[in-house]
Amino acid sequence: MSGIDKLTTVKLVIEYNGAGFCGWQEQPGLRSIQGELSRVLSTVLRGPVLEVTASGRTDSGVHARAQVVSFKTHSDLGGIDRLPFSVTSLLRGEVSVLEASVVPDDFNARFSKHTKQYSYRIFTRRSAPILEASFVWHESRCTNLAAMRKAAESLIGRHDFTSLRSSDCTARSPVRLILESELIENGDELIYRVVAPGFLKQMVRNIVGTLVGIGMNRLEGRTMPEILLARDRKKAGMTAPAQGLRLDWVKYE
Amino acid sequence: MSGIDKLTTVKLVIEYNGAGFCGWQEQPGLRSIQGELSRVLSTVLRGPVLEVTASGRTDSGVHARAQVVSFKTHSDLGGIDRLPFSVTSLLRGEVSVLEASVVPDDFNARFSKHTKQYSYRIFTRRSAPILEASFVWHESRCTNLAAMRKAAESLIGRHDFTSLRSSDCTARSPVRLILESELIENGDELIYRVVAPGFLKQMVRNIVGTLVGIGMNRLEGRTMPEILLARDRKKAGMTAPAQGLRLDWVKYE
Repeated sequence: MSGIDKLTTVKLVIEYNGAGFCGWQEQPGLRSIQGELSRVLSTVLRGPVLEVTASGRTDSGVHARAQVVSFKTHSDLGGIDRLPFSVTSLLRGEVSVLEASVVPDDFNARFSKHTKQYSYRIFTRRSAPILEASFVWHESRCTNLAAMRKAAESLIGRHDFTSLRSSDCTARSPVRLILESELIENGDELIYRVVAPGFLKQMVRNIVGTLVGIGMNRLEGRTMPEILLARDRKKAGMTAPAQGLRLDWVKYE
Repeated sequence: MSGIDKLTTVKLVIEYNGAGFCGWQEQPGLRSIQGELSRVLSTVLRGPVLEVTASGRTDSGVHARAQVVSFKTHSDLGGIDRLPFSVTSLLRGEVSVLEASVVPDDFNARFSKHTKQYSYRIFTRRSAPILEASFVWHESRCTNLAAMRKAAESLIGRHDFTSLRSSDCTARSPVRLILESELIENGDELIYRVVAPGFLKQMVRNIVGTLVGIGMNRLEGRTMPEILLARDRKKAGMTAPAQGLRLDWVKYE
């Protein structure tokens, strides 16, 4: 392999702790995952990397178990098997590269068709979490679990999510298709799990905040279908804290 | 309830992250769980606390999901139901009190008969752990899982643990009874789980270091029974790092 004009497309699977970052997307003066990863990739590959793109732009504080990233490079990759180790060792315990592979040139982590799963951990024990503290929302006042479960399941299908997207979300359509959506009880935790081809800005955190509002009987008896129909962000619950949210996996067609 | 001469015995169940402490036991000039807890208890109860004792003295860096502690106080406990919240809120996210109850005066967390479970997490994926980084030992080179599993199970029963206790352990007898001992595969992790009425100093970490030595074929073919029979610390494996170890629970008779 040689020739500086040859552009190679690479796919990475990465894990990260969102706590120290402003989120995936580069922002002037802030530490982003996109920025740190691009910097380290260009060091390791001894040349610029282009179109460093993730399947979705996680918010500040949101974690990823297996985010998918794509980029292009003119560099000779040599042993791509060593790329995960080289890159991970320069990312100070905050990002780990699990896999690296050369993919067809038309692959793009964001625009190639995929589905992905997010999960959100609500810690329901009365005493403060310690070992899980960085990865959960501590909220012990949900009493109406049956209503939360029903509300979670009612999201499956194609809906207008105007009530559940960030008020500054710029996506052209507020309609999204939800493939799986459920609330799981697991010891001291409630775990909300959702699978979809795509999400709107802060959509999962707004879903979780609304589920918790329903569980605490704080939304004036509104059901999830009523909240969706209202097409009004103010009819839904709060935005759940970022640290409870994790991108679990991304699967491409 | 009143009378300053009345001494009340209290049992606590506490969770802690061992990372910021020199271990359970108070040591001059260092932050210990015993020291921090005693300080906060005497603040909340507005009086000294005596005989602050845990079921076992975890090492520096070792975590606890549900450690049991006992202490005595002359103070009027008032609403003991509020003690967990008051104490937890002063312990800066490092210790959480899950339960507090008044117990018979002869109860002592260490000397009252009990069994307890420790678990140890070995992270076997090749890429560095991120989300689990504070709670696992990253060791991806164990190939002989069958030998590790067999070695773990061979520890069940009453044995002389001279080979597997810290060389500065001062316990009079090196003999301990192991009730349960097993290696569990769980995704990217191997979890070693052990239940016993009592342990010697660094015994679980030395067991795990020896299991890993066996899994990596580094102990010159010695089996666990041979290592125990040798009664020689140098015939066993290394001491596994503290952060992978967690005290899970303590049960009293």
